[in-house]
Amino acid sequence: MLRYSKKRDFPVSRIRRYLEPGPVVLVSSRFQGKANIMTMGWHTVMEFTPALVGCIIAESNYSFQLIRKSGQCVINVPTTRLTDAVVGIGNTSGAEIDKFEKFGLTAEPATKVEAPLIRECHANFECRLYDDRLVEAYNFFIFEVVKAHVAASPKHPETLHYMGEGAFMVSGKIISRRAQFRPDRL
Amino acid sequence: MLRYSKKRDFPVSRIRRYLEPGPVVLVSSRFQGKANIMTMGWHTVMEFTPALVGCIIAESNYSFQLIRKSGQCVINVPTTRLTDAVVGIGNTSGAEIDKFEKFGLTAEPATKVEAPLIRECHANFECRLYDDRLVEAYNFFIFEVVKAHVAASPKHPETLHYMGEGAFMVSGKIISRRAQFRPDRL
Repeated sequence: MLRYSKKRDFPVSRIRRYLEPGPVVLVSSRFQGKANIMTMGWHTVMEFTPALVGCIIAESNYSFQLIRKSGQCVINVPTTRLTDAVVGIGNTSGAEIDKFEKFGLTAEPATKVEAPLIRECHANFECRLYDDRLVEAYNFFIFEVVKAHVAASPKHPETLHYMGEGAFMVSGKIISRRAQFRPDRL
Repeated sequence: MLRYSKKRDFPVSRIRRYLEPGPVVLVSSRFQGKANIMTMGWHTVMEFTPALVGCIIAESNYSFQLIRKSGQCVINVPTTRLTDAVVGIGNTSGAEIDKFEKFGLTAEPATKVEAPLIRECHANFECRLYDDRLVEAYNFFIFEVVKAHVAASPKHPETLHYMGEGAFMVSGKIISRRAQFRPDRL
């Protein structure tokens, strides 16, 4: 059994730390007792406070209706130890299988939404639907992150960044240019 | 003088290859003879065809008005050889300096928009404003990429992924899981 670092509360205004680099994420949802997970690569931070994230959830996904109807989800950040699960989740449908069971993932209760956290992910961001006015035109959902949980270690998790065609870029080294920034531009 | 790989036309429907991994980008613009560059980390692919990209351009940026009024821009993907320029561009204002001159970048004519391409970047995506209905509420612009230019080499450019606090993640190794994908999910 894999062991996972204990998570701690993380300020929602600082989730850009994990989302702005552009990792593929796992979106978990629940509606009327049915839970599911989907992979998502098209997302962006939109605001610090409220902590907004915009993302595309195609209507063809089984998760679309769970999220549309519940108005909630959890955005989970997986690392390379979950590469096979990330690929498997993106290539199966919640209409046919229980993805938690199939991919050996653990659903944990969230604190502010009904959708489950995925224990094995490095970070979990509990989301409530904030603005749905572009859902019909683009399947574009704007969520507010209302609670964030991040693993205490490692400091720099190895994340997956999807490039299409079945290929992923794995996060590399970290460099700092902090001394060259204006304090108000950090 | 640095040398740069010759660029070739690239299918706009496939730009996710460069944007979905989440690199920080340089956005160039021009309006009434005034050109500028800004750094941007909050963006997402939204559709393959038309090739849509959504992004946040804060009103406090000098570029905001150039882009709002011209309805055009170019999204340029820089690599680590431009790290200092990326940081410098994000920490200065086009109201005070000519960023092309200051950071030694070359403005080249685009083919379908008035905004200039940045020669030294790995890829250049010419954009026209497609939907501005969320500009007022969120500074969120939806652009259509109408022309794409990508350097012939390297195959995997070393991109910068901003994490906040002056730190960047540099793109790492590439892994393929293509064999595990359903053809329609690539």
